[in-house]
Amino acid sequence: MHIDSDKCVIGNLRRVVTCDGGGPLVGRAMRQLNVLEHEPCVGVEEGRVSYVGSRSRLPAALDTAQVIDGRGMVLTPGLVDCHTHPAFVRGRADEFAMRLAGATYEQIAAAGGGIVSSTTAVRGATDAELAEQTTRNLQRLRRHGVVAVEGKSGYGLNLEDELRQLRAIRDAGESADMHTVRTCLAAHSLPMEYRGSDEKRGEYLKLVTDEILPAVIREGLAERADIFHDKGAFKLAEVNAFCKTVRELGLRLTVHADQLCEDGGGEIAASHHADSADHLEYLDPAGVDVMIRNGTCAVLLPGSTYVLKMDQWAGGRWMIDVGLTVALATDFNPGSSPVANPAFVMNLAVMQCGMTPEEALAGFTVNAAQALRLSTDEWGVIKPGSRAAFALWDVDHEREIPYYAGTNSCLEVITCRGWRS
Amino acid sequence: MHIDSDKCVIGNLRRVVTCDGGGPLVGRAMRQLNVLEHEPCVGVEEGRVSYVGSRSRLPAALDTAQVIDGRGMVLTPGLVDCHTHPAFVRGRADEFAMRLAGATYEQIAAAGGGIVSSTTAVRGATDAELAEQTTRNLQRLRRHGVVAVEGKSGYGLNLEDELRQLRAIRDAGESADMHTVRTCLAAHSLPMEYRGSDEKRGEYLKLVTDEILPAVIREGLAERADIFHDKGAFKLAEVNAFCKTVRELGLRLTVHADQLCEDGGGEIAASHHADSADHLEYLDPAGVDVMIRNGTCAVLLPGSTYVLKMDQWAGGRWMIDVGLTVALATDFNPGSSPVANPAFVMNLAVMQCGMTPEEALAGFTVNAAQALRLSTDEWGVIKPGSRAAFALWDVDHEREIPYYAGTNSCLEVITCRGWRS
Repeated sequence: MHIDSDKCVIGNLRRVVTCDGGGPLVGRAMRQLNVLEHEPCVGVEEGRVSYVGSRSRLPAALDTAQVIDGRGMVLTPGLVDCHTHPAFVRGRADEFAMRLAGATYEQIAAAGGGIVSSTTAVRGATDAELAEQTTRNLQRLRRHGVVAVEGKSGYGLNLEDELRQLRAIRDAGESADMHTVRTCLAAHSLPMEYRGSDEKRGEYLKLVTDEILPAVIREGLAERADIFHDKGAFKLAEVNAFCKTVRELGLRLTVHADQLCEDGGGEIAASHHADSADHLEYLDPAGVDVMIRNGTCAVLLPGSTYVLKMDQWAGGRWMIDVGLTVALATDFNPGSSPVANPAFVMNLAVMQCGMTPEEALAGFTVNAAQALRLSTDEWGVIKPGSRAAFALWDVDHEREIPYYAGTNSCLEVITCRGWRS
Repeated sequence: MHIDSDKCVIGNLRRVVTCDGGGPLVGRAMRQLNVLEHEPCVGVEEGRVSYVGSRSRLPAALDTAQVIDGRGMVLTPGLVDCHTHPAFVRGRADEFAMRLAGATYEQIAAAGGGIVSSTTAVRGATDAELAEQTTRNLQRLRRHGVVAVEGKSGYGLNLEDELRQLRAIRDAGESADMHTVRTCLAAHSLPMEYRGSDEKRGEYLKLVTDEILPAVIREGLAERADIFHDKGAFKLAEVNAFCKTVRELGLRLTVHADQLCEDGGGEIAASHHADSADHLEYLDPAGVDVMIRNGTCAVLLPGSTYVLKMDQWAGGRWMIDVGLTVALATDFNPGSSPVANPAFVMNLAVMQCGMTPEEALAGFTVNAAQALRLSTDEWGVIKPGSRAAFALWDVDHEREIPYYAGTNSCLEVITCRGWRS
């Protein structure tokens, strides 16, 4: 629902979950979502929240505002999905079947499937097709409560197609009325045409740092760069050099780290002051101190752990307990995580990563905003000054969002005129 | 979307998955969903499908019909959910947390949680509250593609409250515009007031067969009875006697069987010509012959296997291969399966039970209709004469319904005037 008026009041709500704790929620604070229960309502003026409190104390300025019926439901901030790959043009359901028949992710990749098949599809798509499918993917997320989404390139894997992907994400954000944070992931995988020798490998990374990223910066297409550090992807020394260059170019950084084996990815990311290290199924506790010290968030993506049928789940429980800033994301992509439902990811975080339902919701709101370096006064929270973008849930308590397993309890996203500007 | 007109045509579709194979789909036929791909469209007259075929051959009688834009998406029959417990008045998210902290389903039950807490809530609810919450639960399923739903009582556990639950399901079907098949599950669990001795146990089952079921029949509230046969629930001899009486009363039968241990439940159900035996994680292959011979369907409920974190998944693969008629259902209930999304259950069936995506969809359409003894010419299929109730999916191929894991790809349910009558 988009409210096309300057002022509105959302009332008849059971609970308003503000997620407002004055910034990212760390340690025990992650369970304190600051919930209003007594005739709560939210007032909006000019795209920003102007009032959060009981109906009886509504400021006079909002007396004439349009009233939205919350139907006795639970209101949360619109969700922030801080790690997705939305610029793909077709699903990979066939490969899904292959994997279930016993093939590993690496075997599929070696057989020319995996990222390669998405690359072929993206390169072969017209601009219009790419924009249309990317919009469709963002709309999928929006139907499940998401209003702000990080979108990575990484299927183009050459100058022009990486740029086309980032433009598609930018334009899809406009079409789907969602805020996008864009990340260049040209260092996702070695494209076919650069495989076979260490020399070519180096050439590709040079292409990324010397041509693709500068072009991305010139066109203002992304604020961040990402690299996939893991077995089968880029190696420690390559990642280190890449991160250094990225920071010198003035981009912010995030790293795909420690998904398939323990290789110090979290620590490397943090040593370069990355916004976040993502995946972390095999995060080495020894590398945590530098992540905490440098403010690098731990972004967990249990949707991919589920789809890949991995035994090793990210240790959300211990990560929170030691003081990392933990966020969750869908990792929405056509291969390892065709999961467009944050509530399902929250369910997995609760059932498999030892997190509480409240922690899981914090991970998809204010902490996800922090992972993207969006202002935690504006994003993933409901407080005066925050963006007028909300998710309305058909539940009696926010704990039920992950409890209704694999279900979409988001009745609708509510946005108000001017919320993105 | 409800189309309030006598005639309509749904066009601009990518694929129409008819699921029409002339009856329930058994063995290899379960992979043949009979899909139309060439400019397919569906014509409806007076609540029934009157045409399925290419747009260019649309009969003249439909020339003036209202046209519904299928947005290039995939159309399937409206789903049939053949096993749910929708007449509950509140979620049990607290217990969900308890279980994750290590308590078993049986320990929770022993501690006064589990079914007992739902019984207390149902007994304490007014008729209006019960109707409202039951409607809300059916609407949850409808948002995920379901148009026909089996609903069990089984939280009332006394004469009046069992009847109240069945009335609530009947009325909620009207409110939510869904077809209901109602099943009396008074033999769900021994109510607190009858626990403690074998004598009382016998008294409760006598109450069910001598008072509750006859009252249900008199008021026309249910067509079927169900009993929970498993450790912690009713025993073999009790189930046998119960099934015999149920059939003598003229009710159809279904049985909760072989969920937690192998105890011949499927075979017993079949020996009494039950419509279906449901759960079957521990189905003994030795009992399969009589199920096949007597037409007792195998209804798999992997949502509960998932939520209970059981190691043993139902063997969908071998069950199909030996010739059982296999259906799937959500088992939607507040304890062991707060799962309102059939697509997630299909995903689990594919990822854990060895079924193909096509088999999973057959399990939620025509085979689910068969499990409920609904006509497979009218329900779970799209063919001339079938009910005008459809699910429109935001996918490129029906295989993607389970592939988008834990996601709700159902854009909307489409029903046309008169579809239920």
